[in-house]
Amino acid sequence: MWCRKLRQESKRANLNDVTVSTYLDHAATTPMSDIARIAMIDELGKIGNASSLHGSGRRARKVVEEAREAIARAIDATPGEIVLTGSGTEANNLAIKGLYWKRVQEDPANNRIISSSIEHHAVMDPIQWLVDHEGAQVTWVSVNERAQLNVDELVAEIERDPKVALVTVMFANNEVGTLQPITRIIEAAHKYGIPVHTDAVQAFGKVPLSFKDLDIDALTISGHKIGGPLGIGALIVKKNLDLTPVLHGGGQERDIRSGTLDTPAIRALGVAAQEAHDHLSERAVRMSALRADLTARVLAEVPDSRSNGDAETLPGISHFTFVGAEGDALLLLLDAQGIESSTGSACSAGVPRPSHVLVAMGMSETEARASLRFSLGFNSISADIDALVSVIGGVVERARRAGQVSKR
Amino acid sequence: MWCRKLRQESKRANLNDVTVSTYLDHAATTPMSDIARIAMIDELGKIGNASSLHGSGRRARKVVEEAREAIARAIDATPGEIVLTGSGTEANNLAIKGLYWKRVQEDPANNRIISSSIEHHAVMDPIQWLVDHEGAQVTWVSVNERAQLNVDELVAEIERDPKVALVTVMFANNEVGTLQPITRIIEAAHKYGIPVHTDAVQAFGKVPLSFKDLDIDALTISGHKIGGPLGIGALIVKKNLDLTPVLHGGGQERDIRSGTLDTPAIRALGVAAQEAHDHLSERAVRMSALRADLTARVLAEVPDSRSNGDAETLPGISHFTFVGAEGDALLLLLDAQGIESSTGSACSAGVPRPSHVLVAMGMSETEARASLRFSLGFNSISADIDALVSVIGGVVERARRAGQVSKR
Repeated sequence: MWCRKLRQESKRANLNDVTVSTYLDHAATTPMSDIARIAMIDELGKIGNASSLHGSGRRARKVVEEAREAIARAIDATPGEIVLTGSGTEANNLAIKGLYWKRVQEDPANNRIISSSIEHHAVMDPIQWLVDHEGAQVTWVSVNERAQLNVDELVAEIERDPKVALVTVMFANNEVGTLQPITRIIEAAHKYGIPVHTDAVQAFGKVPLSFKDLDIDALTISGHKIGGPLGIGALIVKKNLDLTPVLHGGGQERDIRSGTLDTPAIRALGVAAQEAHDHLSERAVRMSALRADLTARVLAEVPDSRSNGDAETLPGISHFTFVGAEGDALLLLLDAQGIESSTGSACSAGVPRPSHVLVAMGMSETEARASLRFSLGFNSISADIDALVSVIGGVVERARRAGQVSKR
Repeated sequence: MWCRKLRQESKRANLNDVTVSTYLDHAATTPMSDIARIAMIDELGKIGNASSLHGSGRRARKVVEEAREAIARAIDATPGEIVLTGSGTEANNLAIKGLYWKRVQEDPANNRIISSSIEHHAVMDPIQWLVDHEGAQVTWVSVNERAQLNVDELVAEIERDPKVALVTVMFANNEVGTLQPITRIIEAAHKYGIPVHTDAVQAFGKVPLSFKDLDIDALTISGHKIGGPLGIGALIVKKNLDLTPVLHGGGQERDIRSGTLDTPAIRALGVAAQEAHDHLSERAVRMSALRADLTARVLAEVPDSRSNGDAETLPGISHFTFVGAEGDALLLLLDAQGIESSTGSACSAGVPRPSHVLVAMGMSETEARASLRFSLGFNSISADIDALVSVIGGVVERARRAGQVSKR
């Protein structure tokens, strides 16, 4: 109700006055980079199923394999380790279910999954399905107040009973940006021969990431978080690792993922991955500076505001709690001013549920619901921050007043 | 070996002389139609995750819902019945596994799947996985020499034991084009309350198809077979039908299929579906005439050639057996002349396996391997057929000679 009313209000509000919108939601999806988009447009004019043997098919296959090489270079893996999928969600499902089924086939006692309490739904929900449907067990390891996994707890959980199907912990959290102690997690799991998967959808292209050096078993990336297209992702899988497919059919992608290869999206993902890799340091430095500026100025502008997360973080995510204001109200009031942001909550469902990530960090439900994420991308500029800072004070004040009224 | 040698030869051959290629492999993938491509290109320049609440997100959501309406109109379903997926393969996996799991949950005895012996791998392989991995049983119903399902056998199989999870039979075969007696199949299954799925990837946009009138439970379509993009498909699912998801996560698409919606591809699928629907009769008439011409002229041109399939067929598929010639050899020799076609076999695997479809139709392995498919599309013209007819005689003769030599 609260959501719907505010949404209607925000639509009525001065939406017509706003011409340029300030996009501060790059963690949800990014615009395509110019060169990725041009590559994709070029490919959309061509023809060919990469499985066909004729010239058009061979051309498409060549495009796919060149893109695979570019992706491999960007993540420091070999081309044979790249399994192309239709999304990051699909790659996560493949890693989790595919590893679970294989491991349980090897030994039915290997039926426990260890994960963190702050995973994305694309990790939590496949696990929960395995629990509800396939007899899996799960241990959700806790995090501290900065959203960092308690590695000691994870180690203790493994040592308590090392019959574990897999460990899956995200590389960096999508709501508050905190980087996870992935190296220690991998060490702890590998000591007992347990495979490790990480959802690196937010981290890939933003922080240095070497599949080879990590010595991890499976890693998820996605196109539309790095200036590539929607509808394409990949699971990077160690060569000797056997996975049960989630999508069966024509036997594409080493028989691990069937479905006609989406050549235009794959080519564009290759371009975007290469570009993100080539500009990684420069972008990270620039985005970190912008983020520091954003965080400091918003905190200065808004009384009783708090910044969340950790020093070890993604360069582009800035997360706040504005006690006394509903995050969804803030989102929609900012939107009416042409500024686009996000909460982690599910307002779309009609009931503003608090984010499970923030609750896991120890926030009260009220605090969690009073939170908002701003996320910067490769094309963010300081004017975006100026635009936000110029209105955030008034918007929070208005949302706090609305909150007061609605409580009466 | 045979394949590899011929492929090398075809690459060396007069490939450089060929400038215009004649694409006769529309059943594998079509070019994008101009208006679908333009819509997609326009959308690639925009931004927005359709799950986001801000203006960009709402705009993307509106694009998705308008496309969903266009798809619904084209297939005569309601927008709420369209579940968007990343491919036809994914839609088939969702229908088969999703229905199987639900039905077995209702009653563990409902563990048998009835299908046909001429399905696409995207149907056969998910079923086989359920058999190997989940304890399913399967009955593959036979077809006659024209690739038409033996409905009496299917009816007898249902009546023998109506504890069936689902019946899944393709709407039209992808290799020889034969339309299946789907209405009678649906009637027979529904008499016992068994849900029916059909893979209509080849039929959608080519022959009249009403989801409502068929009264079928689930139906698969794909973008890149109708002038839409790769990487997008849909499962049309009756509103009251409950399916177990295959991809879990953010809960998009009625919680049946998770993953960020691919707005550009969805918009283009909507445009292509509408276009295919609007021009269906006109295209079918034109393609049928072209196909009749192609078939007659190739048969006249090549001694000892035979056309396969049925009078009840897709308008664009023409399938031949050229006894004494290897299909893969023909494919590659034609390709060297700029003419692109397909076999149903798996030459890419190094061993030319005969098509399971042709074997099910009663062909010997030798006959099956001597077969080739030409498939026309919305942009095929009579010059394509002229080009084929001008070389097919010589190509078959050469392949037959090569076959003779290799036997010595």
